[in-house]
Amino acid sequence: MRAIVLDDDRVRLDLNRSIPVREPGEALIRVLYSGVCNTDLELVKGYMGYRGVMGHEFVGRVEEADDPGMMGKRVTGEINLPCHDCGYCQSDKGNHCPNRKVLGILGKDGAFAEYATLPVSNLHIVPDEISDKDAVFTEPLAAAFRIIEQVDINEDTTVMVMGDGKLGLLIAQAMGATGCNLTVAGRHPDRLDHLKQNGINTILVNNKDKTPETEILYDLVVEATGSKNGFNMALDLVRPEGTIALKSTVADTASIDTNRLVINEVTMIGSRCGPFTKALSAMKDGSVKTDWLVNETVPLDNGLRALELAERRDTIKILISMD
Amino acid sequence: MRAIVLDDDRVRLDLNRSIPVREPGEALIRVLYSGVCNTDLELVKGYMGYRGVMGHEFVGRVEEADDPGMMGKRVTGEINLPCHDCGYCQSDKGNHCPNRKVLGILGKDGAFAEYATLPVSNLHIVPDEISDKDAVFTEPLAAAFRIIEQVDINEDTTVMVMGDGKLGLLIAQAMGATGCNLTVAGRHPDRLDHLKQNGINTILVNNKDKTPETEILYDLVVEATGSKNGFNMALDLVRPEGTIALKSTVADTASIDTNRLVINEVTMIGSRCGPFTKALSAMKDGSVKTDWLVNETVPLDNGLRALELAERRDTIKILISMD
Repeated sequence: MRAIVLDDDRVRLDLNRSIPVREPGEALIRVLYSGVCNTDLELVKGYMGYRGVMGHEFVGRVEEADDPGMMGKRVTGEINLPCHDCGYCQSDKGNHCPNRKVLGILGKDGAFAEYATLPVSNLHIVPDEISDKDAVFTEPLAAAFRIIEQVDINEDTTVMVMGDGKLGLLIAQAMGATGCNLTVAGRHPDRLDHLKQNGINTILVNNKDKTPETEILYDLVVEATGSKNGFNMALDLVRPEGTIALKSTVADTASIDTNRLVINEVTMIGSRCGPFTKALSAMKDGSVKTDWLVNETVPLDNGLRALELAERRDTIKILISMD
Repeated sequence: MRAIVLDDDRVRLDLNRSIPVREPGEALIRVLYSGVCNTDLELVKGYMGYRGVMGHEFVGRVEEADDPGMMGKRVTGEINLPCHDCGYCQSDKGNHCPNRKVLGILGKDGAFAEYATLPVSNLHIVPDEISDKDAVFTEPLAAAFRIIEQVDINEDTTVMVMGDGKLGLLIAQAMGATGCNLTVAGRHPDRLDHLKQNGINTILVNNKDKTPETEILYDLVVEATGSKNGFNMALDLVRPEGTIALKSTVADTASIDTNRLVINEVTMIGSRCGPFTKALSAMKDGSVKTDWLVNETVPLDNGLRALELAERRDTIKILISMD
C-alpha cells in the first residue's frame, strides 16, 4: 500500500509499504481521509523521535474485524492504545498508560496510508449526518472538548483562546458551545470574522510574539498558539488565581518566568486527548462546524505536498485523500 | 533606628534610619525578632528590584495604634497591603490586589529594623503558648498551609515534598498534619532523621540537580527546592493528571519542557501567602514545631552576617534579634 512514512528525520512517500496486520482485537480499516495536525509537523522536526507511518486523525471503513457487525462501518478512532494491564488502565486512565502506543505518534503505524489497524474498542461509528471530511476532525475536536472536562466553565467565566490555527478554531467553537464569555485572539482577519459572525469576541494580533492588548484579565486562558512564547503571553492575560490550559506540544523547550505563576497563584493545566462522543455529537447537532476549516484536500500520492501546505501561515487544515 | 536596607543592589546596615511614621489605620510595632527567608536572599540578587528596609517575617509588640486595646500586644502580621478599593479587594482577594504593597518586598519598608508599621487589620495577636522565636515562623508556615487550601488532600493522597530547606521543612510538617501519605526528599540527613522520627518517609538526595529515585509517582509534588531545575524534577515525580505545587520564587527564569505537562495532563499551581490563623493554631497545639529549625539568632547590629549565614547550605533558619 501507499503510506507517508517518517524515517531517520526524513519524511517520504512509501509506495510499497506492507498492509498492516491486525493484532487480536483489532480492526483493519481502509482509510478514506486523514488530517494533518501540528503534532505531525512537530514529529517531522524531531518531537517524540517517532519512526513509522504518520497520521492520527482519520475516517475510514472497517474492512476486517472479528465482530461481523463492524464490517463496512464508517469509523474514526481514539489514538491511545493502552496495555489494559497496568494501574492506570485499571483505574480508567488508559490515556496515561505508561506502556501505551499512540497512533502515528508512538510505536503504532498511523493513518496517512491506505490502511491502518486499531483495536475495535478504540473505534467510534460516525453518524450518517457527519460527512467524511468533517469526521476527520473528531480527534482534534475531542481534544478541544477535553478542556471542558478539566476546568469548570460557566456563563460567567471569561475565557481567552490564544491562537486561530486549526486547534484554536476548534477550541473556540467548543468553548463557544458552553455559553462562556469568550474572546479569541488570532492573526487571521478572515478567520476571526467567521467567529465574530457566530457571536464570539475577537482580537486581531499583528505580532505573534506580542501579548494581545486586552481590557480585562481572564479566568481561563487557553494557549493554542503553537509558539514557544505562548505560555509567557498566557501569563500576561490570566487573572490572579486564574487558569491557563496548555494545548500546544512543541519540539522546543520554553523559558518560563515561574515567579509570576507563584506570585499570581496561577493554575496551569496540560490538556491532551478528549471525549470522541462529545465531538461527534457536537458535529452532528451542528454546534461545531468544521467544513470552513479545510483549505485543500490533497491525494495521498502527493502527500508530502500536504505536509508542506500545512506549514503555511495561511493554511488552516489540509486533508489527505486516500483515493 | 537601626535597619538592614537594600539599596542599589547593595545591602547595608543603616544606623540612622528614621522610625517609620504610621499611616491611617496602621500600628507602629517594635520588632522583637525577624526571620531571614529565601525571598530575602533572592531580593538581594535582584528579584523584584526592591529598595528599602528588608524583612517580612517578624514578631513584635504594638507601640502605637488608634485602638488602645492593641497597645502592647505581641503580634505578627500579614505582609500584603491591598488598596481595599479595586475589584480584587472587593472580592476578598486582596493578596492579589494589583496596587498592593508587600512588607519588605514591594514598596513597603520591612521588619529587619527596630520598628515597622503595618495596618492593624494585618496583625494577628500571638497566643501566649507560642514563644517569640516560634512566632517568627507564622508567615512562612502560613505559606506552607496555603497549599492545603488550594489542593484537595486526604489520607490516600501520595505527596512528595521536594526540598528540606526552611520552607520545605515547614511544608513537610503542614502536610504531615493532614495525614496524607507523605515523603520528603532532601539533602540533609540530620533534618530527614528528624522528620523520620515524626513518621514521615524520607529520601536522601546526593545531587541537587538529579531527580530522587522513587518507586511510585506522586499525586502531589510540592516543589520547594529553590532550584531553577526544581520544576523539571517535579515533572519526573508527578503522576499523569497529578499536581505540582510551586512555592519557589527565584531570580532566574527556568527552561521547562512544557510538552511533558501537556502529555501527562499535569496541573501546576503557584502558591504564595496563606492563612495566619491556621499557622498560629498549628504552633499552639504543637502539631508543627519550629524551634529545631533555628540555627542561630544574630543581633541586628550584625545583621549582614545573618544574611551571609542564611546563604549557607547547612543553615535552616537564621533569626535576627532587635535587642
